[in-house]
Amino acid sequence: MNLPLGYQYSAVYAGIRAAQKDDLALIVSGLPANAAGVFTQNRVQAAPVRLSRRNLRLGKGLAGAVLVNAGNANCATRTGDRVAAATAKAAAKALRLPAVQVLPASTGVIGVELDAAKILDALPRLIAGLAPDRFEDAARAIMTTDTVPKMAFAEVKLRRGTVRVAGMTKGSGMIQPLMATTLGFVMTDAAIPGAALRAMLKRSVERSYNRISVDGDTSTNDTLLLLANGASGVRPDAAEMSRVEQAVAGVMEELARAIARDGEGARKLITIRVEGAPSDAAAARLARAIANSPLVKTAVAGSDPNWGRVLSAAGNAGVPFDPAKTDIRMQGIEVCRGGLAAPFSEAELKAKLNSADCDVHFTIRGKGKGAARFWTCDLTEEYIRINASYRT
Amino acid sequence: MNLPLGYQYSAVYAGIRAAQKDDLALIVSGLPANAAGVFTQNRVQAAPVRLSRRNLRLGKGLAGAVLVNAGNANCATRTGDRVAAATAKAAAKALRLPAVQVLPASTGVIGVELDAAKILDALPRLIAGLAPDRFEDAARAIMTTDTVPKMAFAEVKLRRGTVRVAGMTKGSGMIQPLMATTLGFVMTDAAIPGAALRAMLKRSVERSYNRISVDGDTSTNDTLLLLANGASGVRPDAAEMSRVEQAVAGVMEELARAIARDGEGARKLITIRVEGAPSDAAAARLARAIANSPLVKTAVAGSDPNWGRVLSAAGNAGVPFDPAKTDIRMQGIEVCRGGLAAPFSEAELKAKLNSADCDVHFTIRGKGKGAARFWTCDLTEEYIRINASYRT
Repeated sequence: MNLPLGYQYSAVYAGIRAAQKDDLALIVSGLPANAAGVFTQNRVQAAPVRLSRRNLRLGKGLAGAVLVNAGNANCATRTGDRVAAATAKAAAKALRLPAVQVLPASTGVIGVELDAAKILDALPRLIAGLAPDRFEDAARAIMTTDTVPKMAFAEVKLRRGTVRVAGMTKGSGMIQPLMATTLGFVMTDAAIPGAALRAMLKRSVERSYNRISVDGDTSTNDTLLLLANGASGVRPDAAEMSRVEQAVAGVMEELARAIARDGEGARKLITIRVEGAPSDAAAARLARAIANSPLVKTAVAGSDPNWGRVLSAAGNAGVPFDPAKTDIRMQGIEVCRGGLAAPFSEAELKAKLNSADCDVHFTIRGKGKGAARFWTCDLTEEYIRINASYRT
Repeated sequence: MNLPLGYQYSAVYAGIRAAQKDDLALIVSGLPANAAGVFTQNRVQAAPVRLSRRNLRLGKGLAGAVLVNAGNANCATRTGDRVAAATAKAAAKALRLPAVQVLPASTGVIGVELDAAKILDALPRLIAGLAPDRFEDAARAIMTTDTVPKMAFAEVKLRRGTVRVAGMTKGSGMIQPLMATTLGFVMTDAAIPGAALRAMLKRSVERSYNRISVDGDTSTNDTLLLLANGASGVRPDAAEMSRVEQAVAGVMEELARAIARDGEGARKLITIRVEGAPSDAAAARLARAIANSPLVKTAVAGSDPNWGRVLSAAGNAGVPFDPAKTDIRMQGIEVCRGGLAAPFSEAELKAKLNSADCDVHFTIRGKGKGAARFWTCDLTEEYIRINASYRT
């Protein structure tokens, strides 16, 4: 898969986290890119979230670079705003960009001062390392408790040429997006006007990042940016735009699924499908309630076809439905029909649930057309081990 | 502590659960008691919940007996309604009570048929075993994954005599009451009219069972009953009624706290206090959001004073507040002042958090008068072990 044209990437270890793994990443677009962003809806917002939002507004949606650090959220700190501003400004100066065209993002521990000097010292090395093919290095540098880098790619052949999409993201705890979650950066070399790009991002988020959950917590730093620099020279026409959007949404869905699969301590990706709800929004609420139930997640961890927990979790979604018209399938096997136990082989289903991919299909019979997909992961002892000792 | 007059209790092993521990309990009031109940708000409601609700209505709030089984929720089963009706009716007949004066309750696995014959066969032994002092036997018989029986008692000296209150309850997973949680039975020998009793229950639930959470799941079977049989011969006057209510609410609060403390896998009771919110309801929402955050709960499990997670969880409560006016204390030590890290000794606080009782105190400075207390428990690897293998 080819990377989008006109972008360069870099990563270095700036000493922000204790472990000697790259913790500072830079994404640069040669041409100023149209940029759209969605950010956390948490009432507590990290300094880089506030600054990126502000820069997007003041810069009229143009961005030249994204500066990302892992290991420190730069949130709830005395110097947060100053650190975000000083580091973004220094990067802008070195890259000869207007200050408002650098978008910062941070992830890591909350409430610990981030030392700007570490980033400022590392900037020359970071910029010297910029190269078009260092995409994966950057994807690795933004990881925290992620066990794998998360990347997705797409290519769309249009009438006047090919455009490419590439995205990177990180998880893997404090994940329940209500707008965007965690950090995600998606680049395309298609030429897409700002307003269209923002609409595209909003719709794509709705079916990707807004449909995953690891632990039901929404972080203070969630940031998802979509950049379109037009370096392909191809401006999709109206008809083609929907194909580009499909590629962008597809990349974002793949990234979101990768986050759920690599949730802290997770061994299984759980795909939840809901059908027959009164509306798509109601279906999403039901799916989210099932996905967020620790009892459903632990049952899947134990390969236990405990569909009663699925039914009970759905019953707490605040969506009216008749349990007697509810069917539940797990791994394609009907476990509940009309709200009652369906005959199935426990041993067979247990074996099938012993898989890295589990699915729960919740159907309400009747006239409802509302449907949703949602992704989460199983809840294992490892989640506890990771989170009982993350900071200290 | 003396038990309320006029009640008898019994418990037997009816073979409903595999483990040979009593799984069937009976509470009988010699005089028909005024009874009030609150039940799960889950859209999926177990057969005994529906029948108890119906009996309370048809019986004009009079109850003579409560029949409880553990090991099977009698929910989402083909025969659920018939089993609940047949067993309650048989108990009524044997006790010479009108059928509507027996209130059934069940707890255990969902979606597995409950064999009525087991209960019917055990009834004669159960009734033969009735005795005024078998309160704890009954409290033990309703346990599922609870590690200890949960009981609380109170006594109020009034002008014309003493009235007594005794309550039993069980946890310990699928706990997040939005109305009542789990099973709870509170008996008093005060004479309290039905309407006053219902109002008393509603207010008491609001500050006890509605203020705890173990895992954020609301069960299909939650039932809390308050019985007042007047066997003390004492009818509290208007002024005295509030003292009786305090005793009832105190017993319910103690029971609710006991549930949180004995949450599945829990080693610590976490008390969350919120002050300075726009309203009591807003304070309760903030407290609930903090209590339900797996990241807060795992941090406490690891004795990690990770106050950033507390702040972030509060930020997700949907309650407007200014992080810069927020103070957080843990174990009485200020960890966050004005939304920023406060200076504290990490080692000292870590040692203090290594306790069976942890508290988080979240204060918003300003004019807000809203306050709430909420109880939850830490989230440990043991919760996962219990729930990954509960059914199979």
